[in-house]
Amino acid sequence: MKDFFYPASVAVVGVSEDPANLGRGIVANLIEFNYQGKFFLVGPRGGTLFGLPIYTSLQALPQKVDLAVILAPARVVASLVAQCGELGITRVVVESAGFSELSEAGKVLEAEILAALQKYGMRLVGPNGIGLMNLELGLAVPFSQMRPRPPLGSVSIISQSGGVGMHLLAWLTQEGLGLNKFLSLGNKLNVAENEALAYFLEDPGTSGVYVYLEGLSDGRGLMEAARGATKPIFLHMPNAGPETAAIAHSHSASLAADDKVLDAACRQAGIMRVTSQRDFLSAAKLLNQPPVRGNRLVALSRTGGQAVVIADSARRWGFHLAPISPRLAERIQARSRAGVIAPINPIDLGDVFDFTVYNDIMEELCRDPEVDAILFNYGPLAEFEVEAAREMARQAVEQARRGNKPLAVTVLATLKEEDFFRETLKVPVFHFPGEAIEALAMSRRFTEMRQTRTPVTGPLLFERERVAALLAQAPGPGFLPLPLALKIIEALGISPADWATAATPEEAAAAALRLGLPVCLKLSSPALIHKTEVGGVLLDLKEPEEVKAGFAQLAQVARSALPPGAPWEVVVMSQVDSGLEILLGATRDPSFGPVLAFGAGGIATEVLGDVSLKVAPVDEPEARGMMADTRLGQILAGNRGQSAADLPALARALAALSQLMTEFPQVKEVDLNPVKAFPGEGGILALDARIRVEEG
Amino acid sequence: MKDFFYPASVAVVGVSEDPANLGRGIVANLIEFNYQGKFFLVGPRGGTLFGLPIYTSLQALPQKVDLAVILAPARVVASLVAQCGELGITRVVVESAGFSELSEAGKVLEAEILAALQKYGMRLVGPNGIGLMNLELGLAVPFSQMRPRPPLGSVSIISQSGGVGMHLLAWLTQEGLGLNKFLSLGNKLNVAENEALAYFLEDPGTSGVYVYLEGLSDGRGLMEAARGATKPIFLHMPNAGPETAAIAHSHSASLAADDKVLDAACRQAGIMRVTSQRDFLSAAKLLNQPPVRGNRLVALSRTGGQAVVIADSARRWGFHLAPISPRLAERIQARSRAGVIAPINPIDLGDVFDFTVYNDIMEELCRDPEVDAILFNYGPLAEFEVEAAREMARQAVEQARRGNKPLAVTVLATLKEEDFFRETLKVPVFHFPGEAIEALAMSRRFTEMRQTRTPVTGPLLFERERVAALLAQAPGPGFLPLPLALKIIEALGISPADWATAATPEEAAAAALRLGLPVCLKLSSPALIHKTEVGGVLLDLKEPEEVKAGFAQLAQVARSALPPGAPWEVVVMSQVDSGLEILLGATRDPSFGPVLAFGAGGIATEVLGDVSLKVAPVDEPEARGMMADTRLGQILAGNRGQSAADLPALARALAALSQLMTEFPQVKEVDLNPVKAFPGEGGILALDARIRVEEG
Repeated sequence: MKDFFYPASVAVVGVSEDPANLGRGIVANLIEFNYQGKFFLVGPRGGTLFGLPIYTSLQALPQKVDLAVILAPARVVASLVAQCGELGITRVVVESAGFSELSEAGKVLEAEILAALQKYGMRLVGPNGIGLMNLELGLAVPFSQMRPRPPLGSVSIISQSGGVGMHLLAWLTQEGLGLNKFLSLGNKLNVAENEALAYFLEDPGTSGVYVYLEGLSDGRGLMEAARGATKPIFLHMPNAGPETAAIAHSHSASLAADDKVLDAACRQAGIMRVTSQRDFLSAAKLLNQPPVRGNRLVALSRTGGQAVVIADSARRWGFHLAPISPRLAERIQARSRAGVIAPINPIDLGDVFDFTVYNDIMEELCRDPEVDAILFNYGPLAEFEVEAAREMARQAVEQARRGNKPLAVTVLATLKEEDFFRETLKVPVFHFPGEAIEALAMSRRFTEMRQTRTPVTGPLLFERERVAALLAQAPGPGFLPLPLALKIIEALGISPADWATAATPEEAAAAALRLGLPVCLKLSSPALIHKTEVGGVLLDLKEPEEVKAGFAQLAQVARSALPPGAPWEVVVMSQVDSGLEILLGATRDPSFGPVLAFGAGGIATEVLGDVSLKVAPVDEPEARGMMADTRLGQILAGNRGQSAADLPALARALAALSQLMTEFPQVKEVDLNPVKAFPGEGGILALDARIRVEEG
Repeated sequence: MKDFFYPASVAVVGVSEDPANLGRGIVANLIEFNYQGKFFLVGPRGGTLFGLPIYTSLQALPQKVDLAVILAPARVVASLVAQCGELGITRVVVESAGFSELSEAGKVLEAEILAALQKYGMRLVGPNGIGLMNLELGLAVPFSQMRPRPPLGSVSIISQSGGVGMHLLAWLTQEGLGLNKFLSLGNKLNVAENEALAYFLEDPGTSGVYVYLEGLSDGRGLMEAARGATKPIFLHMPNAGPETAAIAHSHSASLAADDKVLDAACRQAGIMRVTSQRDFLSAAKLLNQPPVRGNRLVALSRTGGQAVVIADSARRWGFHLAPISPRLAERIQARSRAGVIAPINPIDLGDVFDFTVYNDIMEELCRDPEVDAILFNYGPLAEFEVEAAREMARQAVEQARRGNKPLAVTVLATLKEEDFFRETLKVPVFHFPGEAIEALAMSRRFTEMRQTRTPVTGPLLFERERVAALLAQAPGPGFLPLPLALKIIEALGISPADWATAATPEEAAAAALRLGLPVCLKLSSPALIHKTEVGGVLLDLKEPEEVKAGFAQLAQVARSALPPGAPWEVVVMSQVDSGLEILLGATRDPSFGPVLAFGAGGIATEVLGDVSLKVAPVDEPEARGMMADTRLGQILAGNRGQSAADLPALARALAALSQLMTEFPQVKEVDLNPVKAFPGEGGILALDARIRVEEG
């Protein structure tokens, strides 16, 4: 990737003298940004532009270039790429549109380009993007213009959409944050997000990365690229609702991942997900500050009202505004010339007009190991204070820097003082205290996420051969018959409630007496997915006669609800009324592979939405974490003096399901709902098991 | 209130020649804002300021003034107020601090001021605030300076904190929104929020009101002032967590309301609660647009990427981006000169460079009754387009105005175009599409809230005398004995599970046999609030011997857990295992009075937090609404083919509790948890009842 961002020479291909030619925008940017290398213009009609000659072909260039940027009609791009290959140009950016995002014919054109890349061992960014930028050397090849020119900063951007990336860049410029590098992915024909991300995480000029995606090329790869990163990654990926997915597809040929799985994967990989550019813009203001390592915040406020707003936001974002410690209060008193300052936090300095007191307090706070972050609500209230206030602000910024304390600045009422911070002190400013605290919380979250553990791949929790043999009995792709599914989960070490199969009313009644009444009856058939909805489940049958009648009723349901000749049988199962209903499940996500689920089961699953997901592998400690993330998990752990349920058994079951998914790719989906757990008692019991396989 | 905002003459009291005198800020503002009336300066040391004479006393003024603004030491304020009264000045603003917010002595000073107000029939704003503004006539009396001067707009502000109000004002100015009127409440000694709000809701210059409060003077009064308002009210009241409450108190002597009750009250009264100034700032950008009446949004976007972001936000905020109707698509095609535009929404115009097409589409959208709001993502991508794009934008704004369609504008990448909208077209701009959609959603929410019904005060659902007689049996203040509480709820028409009292093990066993086994036993004593925690509840006793042993066990608990001599008894109750656990409750909020609660009961109450609140009166239809607001309510209404529970009985029970609270002020709290309801069956059964009274 580095060769894309540090070329010593560039050819811009597709330039003409026509004022509506889009390629001229690229040339204008290279001039405006003062690109440090050499660049050449290429266009079949020749001529000159901005006083520079337009060469009529790549072959006519006076030297070999490191990078070619192509903005020519889609149909000629493959040929141009091949020409680059012949000339030994290994890095190409294609900004032209009209490929797979538009039509089937466009897909063919992409295939031709891919063939050329392979033949010559080249790499390509695009097509259907706006290229890339590296402000360290004034490299800027988007065709659209950027005014004012962004200053050099330490934020880098990877954006699937040129428009979204450019809009963010305009705001990074407005906020004084600037840019380091920019990559517009476009259709991701060759270079995709994971490779780019891995490069930016290594790049010394980048302190944080914003990634805008409309689809994932490889979710697992993204997790691997991110894991262990020492720089924060902010992922902005619009939610894949059906409407959004359709628009995203027509826009950039993307496949959107399930939103909740993506959330889970981000948490596991230490990626911060943002839902708006505004959120990232706030977070970016702290990128050049030390990370926030805890939740102890001290705020200095020029007015009491803002202090209340600060306290409210702090509570909302999980910060603790601990009262100033007596030791610190004493030191502040000793050093302050203004007499009594109440030892409350936020420290209200509304009545303090001697600004050296602020610096005395800052000095103490910066030295205090019990302070994790400082919020500084700055504001001269009148013209005559401005000069002294600015000197104080300058010192405060320097004090925090020396003390290595995260410092967030807001300005009170006098917005022109924001310009002073941004332009003179080169410190980004938050517009409202709440935004500052939200950004501090994101920084703290990044610290916390750095500490997440990696699941351990331990020994198998079940006998592999036994499970394999059972899976081999699958009659075909689709849902397994219930008895087989129950045998498989037994083999995994997850107990179902006592059960038996029955082929006649009499067998059912006999089984019920053996298992102990009351029982429930379940109609099982691979052709029947939602047995409850068609009346295929009968609960709480208390007498043998009821069981016989129930069997007859299910036989009737089988005849009316199943296709003629479809096999069916009846499972008799002990009725379990007590206990709490739990969902344990596993699916395969197209981007992330196996995903485990834990949550409230039974009829509550959909209504409560109290479900926690994790991308496999999930070992037992990870499973405990999943449970703790749900409200049900808190109930199971014992609440209000209630007893705890068998959490180890639940964790083991989740870990076993994770191993099942990893070991047996043919298993597509497992849904155990409900599983019952019993506060104050050991053990769990699965009352239902749905397993879907792809191949027998 | 109007007399405060439209004075023909003003006296500024407390002015001196000293450059550090705060009163000079007031004078500077009156000059800077070009106050249309006459104003006079008063200060005991006399002299001149800004070329104006400083009169040495109020008595020395050449004429009677309509309004006096006082910024003098706290100790002399009462005397100055009295002097105003003697001179017939009926409106006074006090900006001085040092009153109840500071000390007990300050409270005494406030009492003296109050006495003067009463004596002379005067009204007062403050103290400890920054006064008021009315930009219609250049009236601006805060002592702090505002630069640049806000333009005249239609937003009005009521702020308990001067600093918070001023900071918002700076941003309203920055965003081109301006201000109509401003009121800083300070300590609310005389004029408080409700009166001010009622005035602003009548004021022709005001189209929407932002209210910042740290405490409520009278919550019911706020609801009454707001109900029926035709202008949106935005309440920003920081959450009353314990930390915030302490700071708010030290800042402005406020008592904070319970946050969830406040939320409920706002919903009922049609007040929009905002949690940040940023949220209000977004909402304010639509104040001069027609209200959004439905969820059908059409977006016009200059880039595909922003279209995806727009679709994501639309989904998040409950808007439906319906595909363009065939009729509309046809018309657009007929009028557009650019050939094919895909009939998807957001309408992606990235490849359309002829801006008259935008106006053709706008024309159709503005005429379409099935479009509730339009989001316009505007952006010239290059210099040569700017002029044509601006002309198009000008027309689009005019088209929306003529068509009476809500229009939200965002600018793409080229932020200087934001200035064009704000400054030339006088149209506020959203910085990101998500903010525009959030604001559209708030406008829609305002429309919805206008349609809320008022609960009907129907006939009593119970026999008043019977309940009164039972309440009269209360042994004293505190929790009623369980048997009495159960009788009261029976009298309200809410059935408890079958129960009886027992004084001996034998009586308990006999009662159990009469009620039917299994039963549970509950120890009842006014001295015992949390009976479960001390082991005072025994469940699922199946045999008479178990019941006897249980009684003995509870007697032991009574001996160990209760104070010596405290009366106790045992309630025997039928064990009810089936059904869903529900919480029905009522409390009294210090600001809002009786509040009803409905939610998930049993051990889930605290963990799920699935509770809906409403301020009384709650009639049966309102109660149905409360239930529908919870996840439990959705389960009870029948979910995934399950049967519904007895919703009418639950609604009736809530309405009866509401009447109980309204009729009997001595009832402070009712907590029925759990009440059981039975999907598919009629009826509800209360398994516990806690009622707290203040006086017997």
